[in-house]
Amino acid sequence: MHYPNGKKSSKFSASLKGQKPVYSNRGMTLEQDINITNQYYQEQNMAVIHKKPTPVQIVHVDYPKRSAAVIKEAYFKQPSTTDYNGIYQGRYIDFEAKETKSKHSFPLSNIHTHQIEHMRQVSHHEAICFLIIRFSSYQETFFYPVERLFTHWDQQFDGGRKSIRYETIQKEGYIIPIQYHARVNYLDIIDKYYI
Amino acid sequence: MHYPNGKKSSKFSASLKGQKPVYSNRGMTLEQDINITNQYYQEQNMAVIHKKPTPVQIVHVDYPKRSAAVIKEAYFKQPSTTDYNGIYQGRYIDFEAKETKSKHSFPLSNIHTHQIEHMRQVSHHEAICFLIIRFSSYQETFFYPVERLFTHWDQQFDGGRKSIRYETIQKEGYIIPIQYHARVNYLDIIDKYYI
Repeated sequence: MHYPNGKKSSKFSASLKGQKPVYSNRGMTLEQDINITNQYYQEQNMAVIHKKPTPVQIVHVDYPKRSAAVIKEAYFKQPSTTDYNGIYQGRYIDFEAKETKSKHSFPLSNIHTHQIEHMRQVSHHEAICFLIIRFSSYQETFFYPVERLFTHWDQQFDGGRKSIRYETIQKEGYIIPIQYHARVNYLDIIDKYYI
Repeated sequence: MHYPNGKKSSKFSASLKGQKPVYSNRGMTLEQDINITNQYYQEQNMAVIHKKPTPVQIVHVDYPKRSAAVIKEAYFKQPSTTDYNGIYQGRYIDFEAKETKSKHSFPLSNIHTHQIEHMRQVSHHEAICFLIIRFSSYQETFFYPVERLFTHWDQQFDGGRKSIRYETIQKEGYIIPIQYHARVNYLDIIDKYYI
C-alpha cells in the first residue's frame, strides 16, 4: 500500500503515528470532506476545484410577488460528467468521488457509462483524471487512477468482475492522507505521481 | 476589429462574403449556440467543455412509489463560478457567456462579484479565461479576455463607468467567427492568440 508522507497537521500529528487519527470518523461524508479540502486549497491559493451543481430538470417555476422564484416541479437528471473539476498548477483536474460500505469491493455500478465516456475524453486531452474511493468501513480513502478503472470497466463486459476488489484498489491506488484542513489531501498524490 | 480567418462552412460561405450570414438570426440564444458548438468540439475530439448545471438549493423532495423523485420546492442560487469550463489541448478553459440587447455597452452588473473572484483565481493558476459577449442587436459575438474585464471592473469602483462601451469591446476583444457546426467558434481565437 502506498502511504505518502503528507505534511501532517501539528495539532493531530501525534494521533497519526501508528493509529487511526481521532478525527477520522466524525460522521462527515466524503463529499463534505472534499468540499472542506477544496475550500482550503482555494484559500491557500493552491488550486481551484469545485463540485458541479446537481443537474436538475426544471419543469415549473412560480414567481411570487415580492419574493424569490420558487421551483415547484423539477427532476434529478443523470450527470453527464464527473462531479468535480478545476485547475491545479495549470493542469486540468477532473474526478469523481464515491463512498462504499462494502468491505470487499467497489461496485462498478457506482459509475455511469457516460461518466466513463467523459473520463476517457478528458484523459485523451491530458487531464489529470481519477476516482476518489472511500471504504467507509475502514475509513480509508483512495486515489484511484482512471486508467486502471478503464481496464476493470472494459473487462466486466468480457466476462470480468462487476466490481473492483478492495485488495486491487489497495495495490493499484494510493491511500490519501487524512489531514486537518486538507481532510482528503489528494493534491499530495498528484504532486508525487503526476506533476 | 479583429476578424479571424475562421474556416467557413462551405454550405454558407457565399453568404459570409460581405454580408451577414443567413443563419445569424435564427432566434437561437447564445447559450444554445455555445452548447451546439461544445457538442461539435466534443464529437470532433477537439475539446471537452461543458456548461455547469444551474445551481439550485433543494428544500423538499417527494419520493412517490413506482416513479421518479420529484423536487417540490427549490430555489435558484447565485453561481459561485463561471458557467463553462473544460479542457482544450491540455489547457484548462473557463468562461462566462452573456448576451446584451444594448447597442452601446455591456453592463458590468451582468457579472457577479464572486464570478470575478473565480476568474481572478483561475487566471492566477494559468487558465485560459474569457467572456463571450453577444450584442444581439448586431448579432456580433466577441471573445473578451478577462484581463481587460478586470481593469474595467476595478475602475468602476474608482469613479469609472459601470459598463464597457461597445467600441471598447470591438477594440480590446476579438470577434468570434460564426460557423455552421461550430456556431460560436471560440477555439479559433484561442488557437490564434493563446496556444
